[in-house]
Amino acid sequence: MSTHFEQDEPAQLESGLGLRIPRANGLDVHNGSVAPNAQTELEPHSSNSELVRDAIIGLADGLTVPFALTAGLSSVGSTHLVILGGLAELFAGSISMGLGAYLAALTDTKHYEVEFARETRQIANSADLEDEEMYGLFAEYGLGREVVEPLARQLRGDPEAWVKFMMDFELKLERPKTSRGWISALVMGISYFVGGLIPMIPYFAVHSVNKALFISIGVTCVVLLIFGYCKAIATGTTKRAALYGAVETLGIGALAAGVSYGIVRGVNKGLGGTTG
Amino acid sequence: MSTHFEQDEPAQLESGLGLRIPRANGLDVHNGSVAPNAQTELEPHSSNSELVRDAIIGLADGLTVPFALTAGLSSVGSTHLVILGGLAELFAGSISMGLGAYLAALTDTKHYEVEFARETRQIANSADLEDEEMYGLFAEYGLGREVVEPLARQLRGDPEAWVKFMMDFELKLERPKTSRGWISALVMGISYFVGGLIPMIPYFAVHSVNKALFISIGVTCVVLLIFGYCKAIATGTTKRAALYGAVETLGIGALAAGVSYGIVRGVNKGLGGTTG
Repeated sequence: MSTHFEQDEPAQLESGLGLRIPRANGLDVHNGSVAPNAQTELEPHSSNSELVRDAIIGLADGLTVPFALTAGLSSVGSTHLVILGGLAELFAGSISMGLGAYLAALTDTKHYEVEFARETRQIANSADLEDEEMYGLFAEYGLGREVVEPLARQLRGDPEAWVKFMMDFELKLERPKTSRGWISALVMGISYFVGGLIPMIPYFAVHSVNKALFISIGVTCVVLLIFGYCKAIATGTTKRAALYGAVETLGIGALAAGVSYGIVRGVNKGLGGTTG
Repeated sequence: MSTHFEQDEPAQLESGLGLRIPRANGLDVHNGSVAPNAQTELEPHSSNSELVRDAIIGLADGLTVPFALTAGLSSVGSTHLVILGGLAELFAGSISMGLGAYLAALTDTKHYEVEFARETRQIANSADLEDEEMYGLFAEYGLGREVVEPLARQLRGDPEAWVKFMMDFELKLERPKTSRGWISALVMGISYFVGGLIPMIPYFAVHSVNKALFISIGVTCVVLLIFGYCKAIATGTTKRAALYGAVETLGIGALAAGVSYGIVRGVNKGLGGTTG
């Protein structure tokens, strides 16, 4: 990927470290996928709401980390401790995730604008250099100047289309949907909160911490399966695929919970006692 | 974005929910950016290691959530509780992050392979339809059949280049680097762990939980500033930009910590007591 900045601009691009926001790449794939379609080989376009995707990311994350954390803390034997630790994680996690998503969206927008302005300026001021870049792009596919020239000539007469073309094909940058940055962040944060609250409910409801742990494991399994099924409906993928994803999520959660349980139990014994 | 699947394939694509992996988009921008370069308008290409990016993502995430969680738990007044909660979070978080990154990388690779195979098949079996798709791509930039035709004709004679062209320009999919999926995951998980351990050290070292909290806040601020500075060196962005990013991360951490502190304190009082 090539990027380019001018002296006066990069200073504002450093914002938004993209904290704790699951990489969208992996999920875009799923969400963008459509129901198996054997009738035609023409590609159908994704029509699913991106908010569904945001909610799925938040929920999946919430179902994993708070579940593992509370399971780990349950080894100490105090429901009180599990609830306090779980709540601290829920608030810390959902705020980090939501705000991080929002700042990353702002950064993406800013980045797009800066690159757009730069590309526009390059095309206006140094069209010859830009032309060379375009020939270079096509040369990678064995396409020589002679076949690219008619296309290049026409783009040269239409700077607006040329800028759009270079943004898409050279920089491969999509215009971010600015209006929904904060909605996306809100949905992600709330979904994380809801997802994380589910494995905690048994600790609120049941006095015995061991019983609560087992109910929490059961509830998390069931919710992940339901969640996987709904995801299949919402995104149009096969149920088998969704089930596979849910089982994988569960696997991560189980490993994280197991290790957390073992470590907390060992350290608590080492520190000499139980809490609460 | 258009995606397309065949009946027999999507089942395997649903793996890897991309759990808790910060979205790379935002950071790619920063990491891919280069030192301000006024001498030339030609775009320099990113040469920075992607592992640096993974380490930065992990560290930034680790410096935020575990910091906020331990700060929140400190409101109860027990160092023991902070250490147990913090360790549970560290292990749950770093395993989720590392494994999630690994599974997401596997999914990306699988997705690329499936799309590549499909595109190859489409070009072999229904070149006319594929031709139409290509004309459609260019039409969005006002480029008519007559200027695209020489190019289309040549690609038709070189199926390998044509597949590559469609992968890049139609599907906008980059070939994932399969070999480094697990290294990337390992680096991210370890960085998260290291980042998260830093705000916890004061609780190990200092007996008074309030003192430890203030030291933790101080240490996190200092580390974020150093981290921002090193990032500027590593990625070649301006120091001002890196500082801005560090302050933003700190802002998220501070808000998350503040809310977590308030909630845990309130709930602990409501549950009637202190732990430990």
